[in-house]
Amino acid sequence: MATRINTGGSKAAPQKTKPPARVAGPVPQIPVTEVFPVIEDGLWPAKAVEGESFPVRATVFRDGHDAYAAEAVLTNPNGTDTMRARMHEIGIGLDRFEAWLLPKRPGDWTFRVESWSDPYTTWLHDAGIKIPAGIDVEVTLMEGAKVLKRAIAGEAIQNPTQKPLPAAAAKTLRTAIKKLTDTTLTPEKRLEAGTKPQVVRVFNDYPLRDLIGASRAYKLQVDRERALTGAWYEIFPRSIGAHKTGDGEWVSGTLRSAAADLDRIAGMGFNVVYLTPIHPIGTTFRKGRNNTLTAEPGDPGSPYGIGSAAGGHDTIHPDLGDFSDFDWFVAQARDRDMEVALDIALQCSPDHPWVTEHPEWFKRRADGSIAYAENPPKKYQDIYPLSFDEDPEGLYRAIKAVLELWIKHGVTIFRVDNPHTKPVAFWQRLLAEMHLAHPQVLFLAEAFTRPAMMRTLAEVGFHQSYTYFAWRNNPWELGEYLRELAEDTAHFLRPTFWPTTHDILTQVMVDGGENAYLMRAVLAATGSPTWGIYSGYELVENVQRPGFEEAIDNEKYEFKPREYDSIRAVAISKMLQTLNRARAEHPALQRLRNLTIHETTHDDVLCFSKHLDAWESPNGHADTVIVLVNMNPHWRATGEVHLDLSRLGIPAPGADSGWTVMRVRDLLDGQVYDWGARNYFDLDPALRVAHVFAVENL
Amino acid sequence: MATRINTGGSKAAPQKTKPPARVAGPVPQIPVTEVFPVIEDGLWPAKAVEGESFPVRATVFRDGHDAYAAEAVLTNPNGTDTMRARMHEIGIGLDRFEAWLLPKRPGDWTFRVESWSDPYTTWLHDAGIKIPAGIDVEVTLMEGAKVLKRAIAGEAIQNPTQKPLPAAAAKTLRTAIKKLTDTTLTPEKRLEAGTKPQVVRVFNDYPLRDLIGASRAYKLQVDRERALTGAWYEIFPRSIGAHKTGDGEWVSGTLRSAAADLDRIAGMGFNVVYLTPIHPIGTTFRKGRNNTLTAEPGDPGSPYGIGSAAGGHDTIHPDLGDFSDFDWFVAQARDRDMEVALDIALQCSPDHPWVTEHPEWFKRRADGSIAYAENPPKKYQDIYPLSFDEDPEGLYRAIKAVLELWIKHGVTIFRVDNPHTKPVAFWQRLLAEMHLAHPQVLFLAEAFTRPAMMRTLAEVGFHQSYTYFAWRNNPWELGEYLRELAEDTAHFLRPTFWPTTHDILTQVMVDGGENAYLMRAVLAATGSPTWGIYSGYELVENVQRPGFEEAIDNEKYEFKPREYDSIRAVAISKMLQTLNRARAEHPALQRLRNLTIHETTHDDVLCFSKHLDAWESPNGHADTVIVLVNMNPHWRATGEVHLDLSRLGIPAPGADSGWTVMRVRDLLDGQVYDWGARNYFDLDPALRVAHVFAVENL
Repeated sequence: MATRINTGGSKAAPQKTKPPARVAGPVPQIPVTEVFPVIEDGLWPAKAVEGESFPVRATVFRDGHDAYAAEAVLTNPNGTDTMRARMHEIGIGLDRFEAWLLPKRPGDWTFRVESWSDPYTTWLHDAGIKIPAGIDVEVTLMEGAKVLKRAIAGEAIQNPTQKPLPAAAAKTLRTAIKKLTDTTLTPEKRLEAGTKPQVVRVFNDYPLRDLIGASRAYKLQVDRERALTGAWYEIFPRSIGAHKTGDGEWVSGTLRSAAADLDRIAGMGFNVVYLTPIHPIGTTFRKGRNNTLTAEPGDPGSPYGIGSAAGGHDTIHPDLGDFSDFDWFVAQARDRDMEVALDIALQCSPDHPWVTEHPEWFKRRADGSIAYAENPPKKYQDIYPLSFDEDPEGLYRAIKAVLELWIKHGVTIFRVDNPHTKPVAFWQRLLAEMHLAHPQVLFLAEAFTRPAMMRTLAEVGFHQSYTYFAWRNNPWELGEYLRELAEDTAHFLRPTFWPTTHDILTQVMVDGGENAYLMRAVLAATGSPTWGIYSGYELVENVQRPGFEEAIDNEKYEFKPREYDSIRAVAISKMLQTLNRARAEHPALQRLRNLTIHETTHDDVLCFSKHLDAWESPNGHADTVIVLVNMNPHWRATGEVHLDLSRLGIPAPGADSGWTVMRVRDLLDGQVYDWGARNYFDLDPALRVAHVFAVENL
Repeated sequence: MATRINTGGSKAAPQKTKPPARVAGPVPQIPVTEVFPVIEDGLWPAKAVEGESFPVRATVFRDGHDAYAAEAVLTNPNGTDTMRARMHEIGIGLDRFEAWLLPKRPGDWTFRVESWSDPYTTWLHDAGIKIPAGIDVEVTLMEGAKVLKRAIAGEAIQNPTQKPLPAAAAKTLRTAIKKLTDTTLTPEKRLEAGTKPQVVRVFNDYPLRDLIGASRAYKLQVDRERALTGAWYEIFPRSIGAHKTGDGEWVSGTLRSAAADLDRIAGMGFNVVYLTPIHPIGTTFRKGRNNTLTAEPGDPGSPYGIGSAAGGHDTIHPDLGDFSDFDWFVAQARDRDMEVALDIALQCSPDHPWVTEHPEWFKRRADGSIAYAENPPKKYQDIYPLSFDEDPEGLYRAIKAVLELWIKHGVTIFRVDNPHTKPVAFWQRLLAEMHLAHPQVLFLAEAFTRPAMMRTLAEVGFHQSYTYFAWRNNPWELGEYLRELAEDTAHFLRPTFWPTTHDILTQVMVDGGENAYLMRAVLAATGSPTWGIYSGYELVENVQRPGFEEAIDNEKYEFKPREYDSIRAVAISKMLQTLNRARAEHPALQRLRNLTIHETTHDDVLCFSKHLDAWESPNGHADTVIVLVNMNPHWRATGEVHLDLSRLGIPAPGADSGWTVMRVRDLLDGQVYDWGARNYFDLDPALRVAHVFAVENL
């Protein structure tokens, strides 16, 4: 009796194995479990950007001893499978498999894991033992011929999707079958015919898949590349062009005067210009310079104290201009290949129109007054937080309308101030609706708070997140943080690294001065695909307001026009330009999941590399960058770095020897070295704070 | 304008906050994420048994600074919430919460996590700072009164399920409100009225829940207690009562002669008697004594070589009796409060009727012959594995019919031989249908294989699993394994510990002799809620077949009648009886998730405790057992054990001092000691291999 096989054309009814409907989550014939990346039971999508490869992992195993295989499969928003990648075991004995997939355009994709029984590999293994041992010789060779015949005909067990082989491949197998079944030949010759490289190649290219099955399909939200990769420059537009009149009164800068700085910013290679809020500013309880409780006449107030009689979040501060000026600013930025990111701070000054028009959008106290922000005993009387308790729907619609307005005027990125003080469910809904209506618009979460909140904001749809980077100031902790961001959370959280912001000035910048500014810029620009600089960075504005981890004479409370033509500012600007050029020219620096930490012999020196294989590189060439940073801005560090060459895509004969295996070119100063697995370094901050090496083949 | 509140009776339409349908997995207002236990995205149920408490964990956090709370909620198969437990933070700074739930009867339950904003605790915190500091005194006290009024009326924000307070509780709050709002009193007195213990208690008993929300409901399969807890005794029925005739020929024991041993087995406190297969045995390629390739005349053959002309899996070996004998055996066992577990080995001898009736249920080779079991170059020609490739549906139905037959004849437990050599998808379907039709019937997986397969068999429905226990032979590795079983896998895998089986005889038993048999019995009986003994254990049958980790003269291939009246056998039987009595009298020993490893100063000595709080104990009393075992059967061990008293439910003043805090009574020999946090032990295997202490209060 011949084996009954389900082929594409046969009626499969008598062999159906589909479990009854009551089995939820039926396991494939070759089980696939514990798929990664999966967020909240697969209800929320994992993340990638166009052109970014990401790892899929699964536990795949089977009953009995026969061979099996698995592939990760990527499906585009139209439902078409666009890529299949054979999975490889990564935890021997643990049946854990991995493959990398690469979505090529934005949209709502899915991925799954397919598994099957591999009869050819099973036969290769068994025949390789039995024929030399003289066991079951004839039937074993016939079994081989049978597998080859099934492959030619596309007859796979319980797999109606198997297709017959193309003619050339079929011919290869037919030749093999002839010899396999030729009893005039020796068993060894016959075996050789069935196991020779040409035959193996046919089965590699067109595997015979018995008992095929698949995991569930999991969601993958693919965003445009800027969601992962960008170089940001933060400005307070009112400062640029601000000046004092003859009688000592300040005149605000405008959107048009701010635009005058765009050439300089673009010239340094930044591609996002981020504007702190540009709305009217309240006068009630307005803060004075250095966060004093009462403003002096002429103090402009904090742009985060949003709203006045002139309007609220949908209005431009009259001093800055009007919507035509804004449109012009956006156009000027676009002309220089820069996007405009707008700050969205969902809070109101007491003078915001919503306070009188919609008191139900605020928390009202027992005496009917509106609650200001507080963290008892601290009071922030210049700020009224919004409250979603009374009229969540109305407030939601108002906020959405604000965003729609700015999107209409060319804003493509929102930098969201303190999202963790608004309900996560609100963001989840807003980001879901924005994703549907404006998938190109990106949201950056400024949530410096506990891990669960930061993680969940990213999971519910924020495209990018500020991180703890500014507070990771030794190689051990920053190395571990880089690894965590690259490996543990990259499937939902895209980091952005800022050495300073208008709110953050850490001790290392105060103590380390110019060296620290250079060093932290290198770390930010190379450690994360998105990094950002707050204006004034070029001037090493590193004096803190006493007792606070932020700059004195903070720009939030005063005009701060700057001159960037000092020798020091020019030198730092050059370094920023060099870093952004290195990023632009090296796709490895534009990716997150491709990072490896390497060991150094010096406690102050961090080494990491980023590598892209040719297949996943946008220019089709493999790209490798090695970054070596002395994180102590004061002291020279010499020592050895021990590279894990296997992570650099470099053929590594004698990996532990002193052999030279590559040439490295420092992208900062152009110097060239011949390197191997172990390499000497000498990083004196007075001369250089870091190497950023591009790897070139010898 | 008064705050608009959703109450149960009001029309909530204008305030609806439900996200649009397109938000999959909407996060609750107070977010709940990363719920545990959840298996395969929640599609497969987590496990518990009736009367077994289990931990629920979740990440719960919120926007802003206000107080919040979470409860784990248990829902019975009828959809009724039967238990709510307030969750407590277990990872400070990580927002990770836990509570334990206790399902009381078998069935398909669910659990979920509810979260809410807690306005009273928020007010307690704020008022406690502001009133003493003299900030916003009047409005803060009014806010307190408002919260109390809302509680009385059952007016919670966005929570239509909130109910008005019962009269007594409402009266307590009304009294408090009177004082809170009495401006003739000092602010301190007014605050005191709103924060006094009686008021706090009202809010503890009837929390005011604003912004209530819930996680998804997750599946929980609750099985009867035997799924977790039991003492098994394994027999080959044919051996019991087997004897030689005068002319040296063996006469098989029968089900009726085997039943003669039930009194002895029940007398030792075992409650499951497990029968190796009782079906007809093939003669083709029958194995002889000690697994030799050819049987001698009179060799009975392995009961795992199932099937002959007399029948297959649905048939009883004629030598053992017939179905009336089987029914009688089951009845005899039941009379002694024992269940009968039957071995299911889904494989066939070449003489099994299925081989000729259903060749499509086997793998056929290219020459048309049926494939025997093999692991090249090893051949097992006495065994034909079943194959699900050709007619999975027909084979499925046949196997199901076999199980139904034995269930009809009183089998309540199946011990499944090598389930990992059959498709996992087959088990998933079979166990799902069995769970629906016969939820009381239990399945034990004998899969000594890699972790992924063992884990998944348990996840798809096996009620119990054999474990690596026999190969964990030092305190460090066994302690880590006990912890893993209690903490990491208890939500899906229920372990059974066997010191030996008919297939397994490890080196420690060979080397350690009687001491090892006593020691491993203590570990198995106390370390796992289910443990088992293979008959002959009492006789220390510890000689291996050379080169194999199994007993010589293996009972699989010969008759093995035994006499249990030697002094040694009686002594070991007494120990088994004592252990089973300790298990019966101490519910802490009948549970899995309640285990703690304690540090000892001796590398050979393992200490663990099991503790049940009174609320979760079936007899309503807290129960604590401390087990201290010298795992070296040869050498005396003395040293100190350092108990983590917080895990013993013992009030622990001066936990690190030498103070006596409890009395411990050794359940093995009745001796009593006064113990504290640090205790001396002296375990000389010649005298005692272990202590099994019941903790008694001083």
